[in-house]
Amino acid sequence: MDSLQLVSSNKIFGGYQKVYAHESSELKCKMNFSIYLPPQADGDNVKLPVIFYLSGLTCTEQNFITKSGFQRYAAQHGIIVVSPDTSPRGVKIPGDDDSWDFGVSAGFYLDAVMDPWSKHYRMGSYVTKELYEIIQSAFSNLVDPTKFGIMGHSMGGHGALVSTLRNPGLFKSVSAFAPICNPSACPWGEKAFTGYLGKDKNQWAEWDATELVKKYDGPPLTLLIDQGAGDKFYKEKQLLPENLVEACRSVGVPVILNLREDYDHSYYYISTYIGEHFDFHAKILKA
Amino acid sequence: MDSLQLVSSNKIFGGYQKVYAHESSELKCKMNFSIYLPPQADGDNVKLPVIFYLSGLTCTEQNFITKSGFQRYAAQHGIIVVSPDTSPRGVKIPGDDDSWDFGVSAGFYLDAVMDPWSKHYRMGSYVTKELYEIIQSAFSNLVDPTKFGIMGHSMGGHGALVSTLRNPGLFKSVSAFAPICNPSACPWGEKAFTGYLGKDKNQWAEWDATELVKKYDGPPLTLLIDQGAGDKFYKEKQLLPENLVEACRSVGVPVILNLREDYDHSYYYISTYIGEHFDFHAKILKA
Repeated sequence: MDSLQLVSSNKIFGGYQKVYAHESSELKCKMNFSIYLPPQADGDNVKLPVIFYLSGLTCTEQNFITKSGFQRYAAQHGIIVVSPDTSPRGVKIPGDDDSWDFGVSAGFYLDAVMDPWSKHYRMGSYVTKELYEIIQSAFSNLVDPTKFGIMGHSMGGHGALVSTLRNPGLFKSVSAFAPICNPSACPWGEKAFTGYLGKDKNQWAEWDATELVKKYDGPPLTLLIDQGAGDKFYKEKQLLPENLVEACRSVGVPVILNLREDYDHSYYYISTYIGEHFDFHAKILKA
Repeated sequence: MDSLQLVSSNKIFGGYQKVYAHESSELKCKMNFSIYLPPQADGDNVKLPVIFYLSGLTCTEQNFITKSGFQRYAAQHGIIVVSPDTSPRGVKIPGDDDSWDFGVSAGFYLDAVMDPWSKHYRMGSYVTKELYEIIQSAFSNLVDPTKFGIMGHSMGGHGALVSTLRNPGLFKSVSAFAPICNPSACPWGEKAFTGYLGKDKNQWAEWDATELVKKYDGPPLTLLIDQGAGDKFYKEKQLLPENLVEACRSVGVPVILNLREDYDHSYYYISTYIGEHFDFHAKILKA
């Protein structure tokens, strides 16, 4: 814990919602992440499951912890919940704040290869290696190192899916709210992938859930995809869950797609169904 | 509904969280308020109870609807929930944004008598007359006009208590999170009351729950007061719930004070116990 600085701690549903800052070696900058310790973390010799939550475009580590109401369900199931920021912070690369869907707060949970992004924009390795290991070591007295799940929203839903599919077995359970399911085929993804990865579409396929699932060869996995049918970005074909479902079916990977009538892309929608997602993860992680 | 402009509408827990703007005659400016219509509002010939929620210093109509998670409980009980802003907006009185605890977003739910505040700063009448009547008329097809309750947080807890005690029978149920219980005797209240009401402490007593309860002569009422024991402002004696409890006991008004170990003044705290408050109100309003 020496390298973690406590930024805030608030009691909620019997546990504590904390935010820590640390110097990231992958991103070469100071980063915040949040961690919810449920009331069960207060016991002796506990080994609790962990769920990572990855947020969407424009978010920080704050949106999910203040708006989703997840703590009620994490407390009920006894699950630790970790949520990182959405990009490197404070590194000041020219053009990094020109748009809301590229650069700052739009890291896309991948490892960039193009200059000038490749030095800092390594959110893929940050989440699946550095932060994963920090949680295992700094909270080793609380965490079951074999019971990690992951979920996310929009860009973070894409992040949850690719983090799972690229690293078989690392996350035992995965779900997503309104994920960008096929970034190679939508405007958000095309812009981000061109900027971070260049023009080679073979590179893009390595960070695209719809492509990755076709060659998935790890432990059995069920993908839970949640989508608001009234979501503007769904209608604009930024999210394309049907492409992911078709790819899953072509290779026999189980997938559940829940379409929610009239719900939009906001945390109002997420807060309504986050309890169902915790039930889904708890069933797998506590099996 | 002609005079109400819909600002936003988002589906949550099967109902709709809406925000409306309107021209307020009491405040002489344009105001926003939020209203949650639970799924039960979709039925025929429904007459649903209504709870008003009054927010604290620095808030708008947004904080409660994005951070408390109340919609889950309102949907469960079938209750409409209305939340106004915390002061007149856009009226630009000299000094109105010099401090965070007076003027803009600090209307204290009273009717000012001192110049230059008396023209616009009439949040007391705005809540208990104008907005109350707008809800009864604009939503007359959904609302049971005899079943209104009220709750609030901090400055809004003060607002909920004085709105109830000054207007016997107007609100059938009342509760508060970390309310300013005795504003005449704390720094926040002394500053606001001096500015809005002048130096006459007889005027102050007309807007102070601890004073008002001593002469309450209306229908039977139980006050539910919730307080985080780790709340910085509680420790600094801005809130003084013990003074209100003592006053209630001196005149035989039932009061419940729930002290919550280690909880603070934030929405993390409110979100933990808002479900209990909905249970309390529902029991009274649906009796």
